[in-house]
Amino acid sequence: MPIVKEIPKLNVLQSYRVIVSTREKCYEGMKIMSEINPQRLMNDLKHLRTIGQYGTGVVRPAFSTKDMEARQWLLERMGEAGLKASMDGVGNVFGRSPNPGRGVLIGSHTDTQPQGGWLDGSLGVIYGLEIARSFAENRRMAHFAVDVASWSDEEGTYMGMLGSRSFCDMLSRDDMERAQNHHTARSLSAALEQAGLEKIPAARLDPDRFAAYLEAHIEQGPYLDAQKTPLGVVTAIVGIRTFRIAFKGQQNHAGTTPMAYRKDAGVALMGLAHRINREFPALAGPRTVWTVGHVRLEPGSPSVVPGRAEMFLQFRDTDAKILETLESKTTQIVREACEQGPVEVNLEEVSPRCESVAMDETVQECLAMAAEIHAPGSWIRMPSGAGHDAQILAHQIPSGMLFIPSIGGISHDIAEDTAEEDIVRGCRTLATATEALLRRVNPV
Amino acid sequence: MPIVKEIPKLNVLQSYRVIVSTREKCYEGMKIMSEINPQRLMNDLKHLRTIGQYGTGVVRPAFSTKDMEARQWLLERMGEAGLKASMDGVGNVFGRSPNPGRGVLIGSHTDTQPQGGWLDGSLGVIYGLEIARSFAENRRMAHFAVDVASWSDEEGTYMGMLGSRSFCDMLSRDDMERAQNHHTARSLSAALEQAGLEKIPAARLDPDRFAAYLEAHIEQGPYLDAQKTPLGVVTAIVGIRTFRIAFKGQQNHAGTTPMAYRKDAGVALMGLAHRINREFPALAGPRTVWTVGHVRLEPGSPSVVPGRAEMFLQFRDTDAKILETLESKTTQIVREACEQGPVEVNLEEVSPRCESVAMDETVQECLAMAAEIHAPGSWIRMPSGAGHDAQILAHQIPSGMLFIPSIGGISHDIAEDTAEEDIVRGCRTLATATEALLRRVNPV
Repeated sequence: MPIVKEIPKLNVLQSYRVIVSTREKCYEGMKIMSEINPQRLMNDLKHLRTIGQYGTGVVRPAFSTKDMEARQWLLERMGEAGLKASMDGVGNVFGRSPNPGRGVLIGSHTDTQPQGGWLDGSLGVIYGLEIARSFAENRRMAHFAVDVASWSDEEGTYMGMLGSRSFCDMLSRDDMERAQNHHTARSLSAALEQAGLEKIPAARLDPDRFAAYLEAHIEQGPYLDAQKTPLGVVTAIVGIRTFRIAFKGQQNHAGTTPMAYRKDAGVALMGLAHRINREFPALAGPRTVWTVGHVRLEPGSPSVVPGRAEMFLQFRDTDAKILETLESKTTQIVREACEQGPVEVNLEEVSPRCESVAMDETVQECLAMAAEIHAPGSWIRMPSGAGHDAQILAHQIPSGMLFIPSIGGISHDIAEDTAEEDIVRGCRTLATATEALLRRVNPV
Repeated sequence: MPIVKEIPKLNVLQSYRVIVSTREKCYEGMKIMSEINPQRLMNDLKHLRTIGQYGTGVVRPAFSTKDMEARQWLLERMGEAGLKASMDGVGNVFGRSPNPGRGVLIGSHTDTQPQGGWLDGSLGVIYGLEIARSFAENRRMAHFAVDVASWSDEEGTYMGMLGSRSFCDMLSRDDMERAQNHHTARSLSAALEQAGLEKIPAARLDPDRFAAYLEAHIEQGPYLDAQKTPLGVVTAIVGIRTFRIAFKGQQNHAGTTPMAYRKDAGVALMGLAHRINREFPALAGPRTVWTVGHVRLEPGSPSVVPGRAEMFLQFRDTDAKILETLESKTTQIVREACEQGPVEVNLEEVSPRCESVAMDETVQECLAMAAEIHAPGSWIRMPSGAGHDAQILAHQIPSGMLFIPSIGGISHDIAEDTAEEDIVRGCRTLATATEALLRRVNPV
C-alpha cells in the first residue's frame, strides 16, 4: 500500500522545502517508491515481545540470557533479509547491506529496562530491518545500501548507550573497566565474558559509508498522544546529568540509640531529596525534568539506623545553561548538608555525561517531508526528553529521529503501548525519509 | 575467682533489700557460691563469632546455613555440659537440666541482623551455657535446675522474636503463614522446610518449671558506656510499632514525562518522611525514638520515575500514650498525603506489635543485688530501647534483664564490641542473680 506521489528525482530536498513552506497538497509531482510490509513488521515486533515477555512488557536487560536470545533471533532475521549479519565485542548487532555506495544506517536497541515496554528500542530496530528488506525486494530500490544496527545496553544496565559509544570510539579503556551493574555490582567485563563476547573485536564506524543515521522511537512522553498527533520530528536530544549522592553516617540500633546521638544516613538523604524537590522548580525551564529514581539505605532493616545511603539524581534539558545551574545548585545543597552534619555527604557524577545535541538540519527536513506525506498537517517538531543512541551517532554523522505516540505517555513500564496504525505509519514515514536521503546522495 | 561473701541462706531478698537501701558494703554476711569460668566463656563467644564471621561482625540471619550451623554447634556444647539438648520446630535450641525442681531459664538468641555484631544475642546464650555448666560442676550448686534457650529469629528476618513467641504460644497459624522475609519475599514455612524443621513439633513453656527467665544482653545504646557504668538492670522494655507505608503512583520515563504529569511515588515518600522527621519531635518523650530503616523505590532505576515505593517507619517508647500519639500522627500524615495526591498512600501495621512491658520486681531486685556485689555503686536501672525475647517471656513468667556496655553505643553493626572485663563481670553478675533466685524458690 505505498503512497505513490511524483517527486523530482534529483532534487528531493528542494521540492521538500517548497512543500513545507506552503503546507498544501504539494506532493503531486513526487513519486515515492519505497514501501513496507505492515504484516511482517507487526509479526516481527510481536515475536520479539515474546523473548523475555513479562505481562504486557518485556524483561530483557543488557547481556541477560533473554537479551542475548533476542540478539541471536535478530541475527537470523537479518541473514534472511540478505544482510551480512554480525555481533561485535560489546554485543552490537549489525546487518550490513551487500550494496556499495553511501548508505543510510537505521538503528535503535533491543535491550530493555528492568521491567520495560515492548516497543522501547525494538520498534526502531525492526523498522530498520523491515525497511532494509522491503527495499531489497523493491526493483527500483534494491541498489541502495540500508544497514541496520541494534546497539547494546542503551538502557544503561552497565553503561547507558554502551554500544553506540563503542561504535563511535567514544569510550576509554577506563570507562569500560569502571562500568558495572548498580544493582548487582557485577562488572561489564564479567557480563561480556559470560555472554561469550570477550574475544570478539568491537566494530567501529566508517563515516564514509553513511549519509545519515536514522532512529525511530516511541515518544515515551505524553505530547503526541495528548495532541492526537501521530508523528514527531526530533529537533534535539536533551543533555543528561546523573549524580550519585552518597551519605555516610553511623549504623546503629534503632531502639537503643537516642535521637540526639544518631548519624542517620537515611534522614540526611530524605532531607536533601526534599530540598531538591523544593528548590529546583525556581531554576527549571518549561521542559526541565529531574528525578530521584533510585534510593538505597544500608543495611535496609526497619530496626537499624541506616549507616550508609545513596540516591541517584538525574536532570535533563536541551538548554546547557539550565543543566549548569542545576548542577551548581546540587553542589551547593550537598556542600551545605555536609557542613551541617552529622552525616558526611558526597557528590559524584555518573560518567559519561550526555551533552544535549541538535539533530542534523537536512535529516530533519527529510523526516519532515516524509511526515507531511504520511500525516499531512498532523506532525510536530519536538525535542527528545529521553536519551537515545542518535545523540552519540550525531557527533560523527548526520543524524535524525522520528517519534510515534506513546499511549498515555507511558513508557519504561510494562503498560507502554502504541496503536498499530501509528506503528505502521511510523515505519512508512521512516522508509520515505530513508529513500529521500538515499536519493539525495546517490543521484541516478 | 568467686566473690565469697556470707548471706543468710534463706532470706536472700530480704538481706538484699537492706543492701540496696544503704548502698554500703553490706555483703559481709553473704556467701555467694556460684562461680564461672571466664576463659571458657570467652573461648565459646569467640568460637561462635567464627560461624558466619564478616569482618569484626557476623552474618547469621535466621535459618541461613550459618545460623543452623551455629545452632548445631550450640547443641553439642549443651550436650557436653550435661544438658538435654534439643531443637524444636521453629529452630529454638534448648538445653534442659536433668535436675527436678523449679529452675531458672536463661536465654537469648544466636541469629543476627543482616550484618550484625558478634555479641548481640550470642552473649546471653553463652552466659546461660556457662552458668548452667559451672553450676553443674559446683558441688554446692549442682542440684539446681538451670535451663538454657537460644530463641530463633529474634532479629526478625521472618518475624521478630519468632522463637519466644512460639514457645509462649502467642502465635496464630495465620501469623506463621503470613511471616516472610521482606528482602527476598521468601515465606517462613519455606525457610523452616529448607532448614529441615517442618516436621518437628514446636516446644511450649511449662510455667511450673521456672521461677524466672533471665536474659543478659549488650545495651546496644550509649548510656552505660558514656557513664562508665558496667551494669544496667532493666526496668521495662519499650513498646514497638512498625508500619509499612506504601506509595502507588505511575511508573514512567524520567526524561520524557513532564514534571506536571508525574505521579512519582518516590517524591511522595520523601515528602512524607521529611514531614515525619519535622513533626515527631514535638510529640516525643525524652527517650522516644523513631526510624525509617528501609526504603525501596520501584523499579529503582535512575532513569525511571518510580511507580511504587515503600518505607518502614518504626517508633518505640515505654510510654503507651506516646506510642498512641505517634500512631495517630502517622495516620493523619498518611491520610493527608493521600488526599493531596497524586500518589496513593497506604498505611499498614507490621504485625505482631510489641507492647511495652515492665520487668518483674523480684527479679529486678535479685539482679540489682548481684550488680551491687560485682560493681558496687556502679550500676543503674534503665529501660531497654531494644526489643528482646524477655518481653515475650515476661507475659508468662517473672522475667528480668541485665545489660552490659556497648562501646560507643554501637550495635546492629559489625563494629559492635564490649570490653572483655565487662563481658566477664556481666556473666558473674547474672550467675549471682541466678543463684539468688534459685535459693529463693528452692529453700534448703
